[in-house]
Amino acid sequence: MSRVLYELAAADPDRRFSPFCWRIRLALEHKGLAFDGRPWRFTERDALAFSGSDKVPVLVEDGRAIAESSAIAAHLEAAYPDRPSLFGGTAGLALTRFHVAWTDGVLHLALVPLLLLDIHRHLDDADRAYFRRSREARFGKPLEAVCPDPEAQLATLRRTLAPVRAVLRHQPFLGGDAPLYADHVVMGAFLWARGVSALALLEADDPVEEWRKRMLDRMGEGSRALTFG
Amino acid sequence: MSRVLYELAAADPDRRFSPFCWRIRLALEHKGLAFDGRPWRFTERDALAFSGSDKVPVLVEDGRAIAESSAIAAHLEAAYPDRPSLFGGTAGLALTRFHVAWTDGVLHLALVPLLLLDIHRHLDDADRAYFRRSREARFGKPLEAVCPDPEAQLATLRRTLAPVRAVLRHQPFLGGDAPLYADHVVMGAFLWARGVSALALLEADDPVEEWRKRMLDRMGEGSRALTFG
Repeated sequence: MSRVLYELAAADPDRRFSPFCWRIRLALEHKGLAFDGRPWRFTERDALAFSGSDKVPVLVEDGRAIAESSAIAAHLEAAYPDRPSLFGGTAGLALTRFHVAWTDGVLHLALVPLLLLDIHRHLDDADRAYFRRSREARFGKPLEAVCPDPEAQLATLRRTLAPVRAVLRHQPFLGGDAPLYADHVVMGAFLWARGVSALALLEADDPVEEWRKRMLDRMGEGSRALTFG
Repeated sequence: MSRVLYELAAADPDRRFSPFCWRIRLALEHKGLAFDGRPWRFTERDALAFSGSDKVPVLVEDGRAIAESSAIAAHLEAAYPDRPSLFGGTAGLALTRFHVAWTDGVLHLALVPLLLLDIHRHLDDADRAYFRRSREARFGKPLEAVCPDPEAQLATLRRTLAPVRAVLRHQPFLGGDAPLYADHVVMGAFLWARGVSALALLEADDPVEEWRKRMLDRMGEGSRALTFG
């Protein structure tokens, strides 16, 4: 079977930085499924037109396209039930929606101000203009004004991670003894950062940092080569 | 089997207001286990001495005491595997720790400023003095100064609930089609509020409010009688 994952990339095609694409890359590795990760840029709408989606991730298996990370994860779980589970059952799938909602709506919001300028710097020219225009509309101010105090924002980010930290004080992964999709979702945020920024987001003795390293250690060679750490 | 749940109570013994006790009351109902809910007050340490704990909830089954809500929930799941599951399996148990950590460390912190004075007002005299002393030490200011702007705090609470709201837009309960312990944990916060305050915490058309009503509708008669709604 041919399997292609379209992933958001910077000017350097090896620099992948979408947290939503990263969670699917980790989910594919979790399932032990080989795939071709294909770089895609914000302004390459035409290249995705076949899928009916205007953004990534898009997974294409034997010509069938599936867009949106939660839909792709649910598809992988249903299509490959004999591979290691991403959710640990129906209840786990339902419960994981909270980890996803919190990551998308809380964690990402705390992180993005720290990354905006680094993302902008790494994009190719066409994407750079698109990125500035769309993000300045979203934040209502110039990119350079979104994060006037990075140190305070870093403190906010670390405080935001408190519930993750509390769980990781009691078990090695959000999924328990081994990672589940919930881990991949939160790790996607850190891999997003790692793709564009050298900033140390966590203190060395933070249980979240220890977990982040455990997650990095479990990544496949091909994915590690894309992390720029 | 005799089964007693010690629950935090106000001067009126029917006014139960600990979110940690409520989640266990809901868990016992979920498992279909009959129990005697016994009111306990902050300053009645001696009455709990037998259990080795100085706070509630404490569950006593045939003379065996178990303290701390997460430990009690795990005990109920292990001891009554044939009753409806609280977690939906091992993965669900691990994943639910995030809902618990978020509720304890984020949701409760957004809610408590709105409730402090109401709690204080409902306590008996001995507990009232204890409560003021211990909470003023925790917040570093007089109870009356903790929430100078209740409207702003209410807006913060509603914003804090965003990830719960996002999940409940897609499924009727945090646990999926039916409540799991994760629902009981978040609902405990609302029952805590309901025990002492008449404040409308949510807008009528908020998916969280619709879920809260569904949760109330499922509660047993005995528990509904304790909610003062």
